[in-house]
Amino acid sequence: MRATVKRKAHFNAAHRLFKKDWDAQKNLEVFGKCSYPNYHGHNYELIVGVTGEIDKETGFVIDLKILKDLIESEVEDAFDHKNLNLDVPEFKTLNPTAENIAVVIYDKLKKKLDTTFDLEVILYETPRNYVIYTGA
Amino acid sequence: MRATVKRKAHFNAAHRLFKKDWDAQKNLEVFGKCSYPNYHGHNYELIVGVTGEIDKETGFVIDLKILKDLIESEVEDAFDHKNLNLDVPEFKTLNPTAENIAVVIYDKLKKKLDTTFDLEVILYETPRNYVIYTGA
Amino acid sequence: MRATVKRKAHFNAAHRLFKKDWDAQKNLEVFGKCSYPNYHGHNYELIVGVTGEIDKETGFVIDLKILKDLIESEVEDAFDHKNLNLDVPEFKTLNPTAENIAVVIYDKLKKKLDTTFDLEVILYETPRNYVIYTGA
Amino acid sequence: MRATVKRKAHFNAAHRLFKKDWDAQKNLEVFGKCSYPNYHGHNYELIVGVTGEIDKETGFVIDLKILKDLIESEVEDAFDHKNLNLDVPEFKTLNPTAENIAVVIYDKLKKKLDTTFDLEVILYETPRNYVIYTGA
Amino acid sequence: MRATVKRKAHFNAAHRLFKKDWDAQKNLEVFGKCSYPNYHGHNYELIVGVTGEIDKETGFVIDLKILKDLIESEVEDAFDHKNLNLDVPEFKTLNPTAENIAVVIYDKLKKKLDTTFDLEVILYETPRNYVIYTGA
Amino acid sequence: MRATVKRKAHFNAAHRLFKKDWDAQKNLEVFGKCSYPNYHGHNYELIVGVTGEIDKETGFVIDLKILKDLIESEVEDAFDHKNLNLDVPEFKTLNPTAENIAVVIYDKLKKKLDTTFDLEVILYETPRNYVIYTGA
Repeated sequence: MRATVKRKAHFNAAHRLFKKDWDAQKNLEVFGKCSYPNYHGHNYELIVGVTGEIDKETGFVIDLKILKDLIESEVEDAFDHKNLNLDVPEFKTLNPTAENIAVVIYDKLKKKLDTTFDLEVILYETPRNYVIYTGA
Repeated sequence: MRATVKRKAHFNAAHRLFKKDWDAQKNLEVFGKCSYPNYHGHNYELIVGVTGEIDKETGFVIDLKILKDLIESEVEDAFDHKNLNLDVPEFKTLNPTAENIAVVIYDKLKKKLDTTFDLEVILYETPRNYVIYTGA
Repeated sequence: MRATVKRKAHFNAAHRLFKKDWDAQKNLEVFGKCSYPNYHGHNYELIVGVTGEIDKETGFVIDLKILKDLIESEVEDAFDHKNLNLDVPEFKTLNPTAENIAVVIYDKLKKKLDTTFDLEVILYETPRNYVIYTGA
Repeated sequence: MRATVKRKAHFNAAHRLFKKDWDAQKNLEVFGKCSYPNYHGHNYELIVGVTGEIDKETGFVIDLKILKDLIESEVEDAFDHKNLNLDVPEFKTLNPTAENIAVVIYDKLKKKLDTTFDLEVILYETPRNYVIYTGA
Repeated sequence: MRATVKRKAHFNAAHRLFKKDWDAQKNLEVFGKCSYPNYHGHNYELIVGVTGEIDKETGFVIDLKILKDLIESEVEDAFDHKNLNLDVPEFKTLNPTAENIAVVIYDKLKKKLDTTFDLEVILYETPRNYVIYTGA
Repeated sequence: MRATVKRKAHFNAAHRLFKKDWDAQKNLEVFGKCSYPNYHGHNYELIVGVTGEIDKETGFVIDLKILKDLIESEVEDAFDHKNLNLDVPEFKTLNPTAENIAVVIYDKLKKKLDTTFDLEVILYETPRNYVIYTGA
C-alpha cells in the first residue's frame, strides 16, 4: 500500500527576477515589476510530498519529524530571511522564479531521501500563484 | 524539466440546475434546492494549472501575467456577475453543474494556449465542493 | 467572566443591487456589475458572535448546538439557495447589500436570544469583502 | 469526459500512536509525543475525491448529496467524537496513523461506491500534515 | 500610538466535557457527543493579541519572538499532545470547554506580561467554533 | 445604524529591520534574522476596515469600489514590489516593522476618507503574525 504524506513549511525571502545577460530594459519588459532593482519579497509556503509504502511496523510512509527536520536543514536554514539572488549560491546564475526555486528545493531534498520515495514539491510564491515540481 | 504553475482567480455568478426536458417535479427530485426557480449563486474560485517545460531563458513555464490576462478575458469577463443559465451562451443547453462549468472553462482556455501545454481546471463551487477537469 | 463565542455557518444565494425608484442607468452607475438584471450570487460565509457570562455550571457562554440550530432555522432555512430579492420578504423593499443582509440577520437572531447576550454578525460576501454589525 | 469531484468533511477524534508488541520506551522513541498514554486529538479534515464520467443527463459525476451522506454514515458516524484506539474496531490492532486512517476510510467508502469510480482520500491530521491515498 | 500585535500558535489535545457532580446521563444530555467517556480531541489554533504602545526605539509593541517563546513555555509545553482532563492540573476541577481553556491561557499569559499590556486570547476549537476572552 | 465594511488587499515587498544609529551587532541582537543586511520579504495581506452609518439610499457604508481604488492608489502603487527601506520615503527614517507599516497605511488612508468614518488597518506580515491599528 503506497500513500503520500505531505508536510507544510515556510520561509520569507527577498528576490528579483533578472537575467544578467539582458539589459535593464529587457528585464523590465519580460519580468515587469518583478525585476525592480531593489528587490521585493514573499512569504513562500512550501508543501513537500513524499510517496512510498506504508511501513507495516510503524504505519508511517516516513516519520514526519524526519521530514520536518530535513526541510528545516535543507530549505529553511538556507533560504529563510535571505535574499535569494545575493545570499543563496544556487541562484547566483539561476533566475529565482518560483519554478526554479521549486527545482532547487526538489534537488536538495531528493539527495537526502531514500531512493524508493517519490518526491513532490509545491511552492506558493503568493496565495494566488504556485508551482508543482515532481522531477518529471 | 516539466513543472506545473497554478493561478487562482474568481467570479461570482447566479445559476440553477435545471433540465428543460424534465418537469419541475423531476428537476426538484434530482437537483434538490439547486433547482429552485429564482436561482441562487456562488463565489466560484478557479485554479488554472498549466504544465510545460521550464523555459531556460526566463525560468518560466508560462508568464503568469499572460495566464492571468487569459483567465480574465476568457472566464471572468464572460461569467463574472452573470446569471450562467440566462447570460452565458454555453449554458443555454448545458446544465451549469460545477462539472460542466469546469469543462467549458477548460475548452475556452485550451484553445488559446500553445498545444505543448497540459491544462488542468479546478473549480470550487463552495469551499466544501470542487471539481477537477484535465481533458482526459 | 464574560467571553465571546463564535460560530460559522454559510448559505448560497443570488441577489442584485437595485433601487426600484432609480432607473436602470442610475442603478448601473451606482452599483456597477452588481446591478446586472439577471442576478449574480455568492457563497455567504456567516460568523455569529455571542458575548455573555461563562456559566459556572457548564463552562459555556451559550450551548453552541443551540446557536447552530438558531442560525439554521432563522438564517439558513430562510436564505440558502434563494434569490434574496425575489424570495426573501425582508428584501422586497430593502436593497440586499452585505450591510443590509447583516442587519437583517442581526435583527432575526437578536429577537431569539436572551437579552443578556451581546450579538455580533460578521458576513463575508466574498473572501475579500465582509461586513460587521453589532447593533450599535 | 472524466472529471473528479471532491467533497470536504470533518471529524474530531482522540488517538495515540502505539504498538502493543513494543514497550512504552520503544513507543516513545518511535512515536514521540504522539505516544503519550492519555491520548491527544485532532480535527481531522477529510476530502473525498471521486473520479468518473460526467453523466450526460445530469451533468454530475456523482450526486454530491449521495457522497455527503455516504461520508456521514461510513466515516463521521463511526469516527466523530470517538477515541480511535478504544472505540473504533479497525484500530484495535492497527496503529491509527494518518496513513492508516486514510486507508481505512478508503476501504469503507470503496465498498459502497460503484466500481466504475476511482476514489481518492485526502486526510488532514493538522493544517500542516496530511496524507493522500488512492488505493494504488 | 497604541497597536495590537497578534501571534498564532497551535496545540493538539484530547478532552471531554464532563461535570463530576453530574451522572453520565445528565452529562450526555447537556454536553452531547462531547461527553463521550473515551475522549475526543482537537487541533486547537490559538491567537494571542497584545495591545500596547509602539516603542519608538524598536517600532515594536512587543518583540514577537518573546511572545512566541512565552506561548511555547506557558501553553504549548503544558497542553500539546496532552489529555486536558487527565494531564493538565487546571482542568482537574474545571470543565475544559473552549471558554474555560481560553480563560486558563489568558491567566497564565497575563501573569508573565508587563502590566501595561492588554491581552486577548482567541481560541479555535475547530475551524467553525471559537472563543474570545479579554479578561473583561 | 453603524456597521464596519472590510476589504482585503495585498502587496509583496522586501524589507529589513534596522536602526541606523545602532551598529550591526546591536541590530542583530534586537532584530535577529529580520536585520540581515541583504533584505528578506513578505506577502503582506492587508485588511482595511471602515466604520460608518449605512446610507439609507444605497445600503452602503462606503462603496467598496471606492475603497478598493483608494487602497490601490495609496498603498499598492506605493509599496507593491518595492523595497520598503530603499524605495518608500516614509521608511527612510522609520523602521519598517509591521506596526509602523500599519501606522503609515492608516495615516495615508485616513487623510483621503471622509472624517465621519472610523478606520482600522489590519496587516498580516505572515499568516502567523499580524498587527491591528485604529489610530487610538
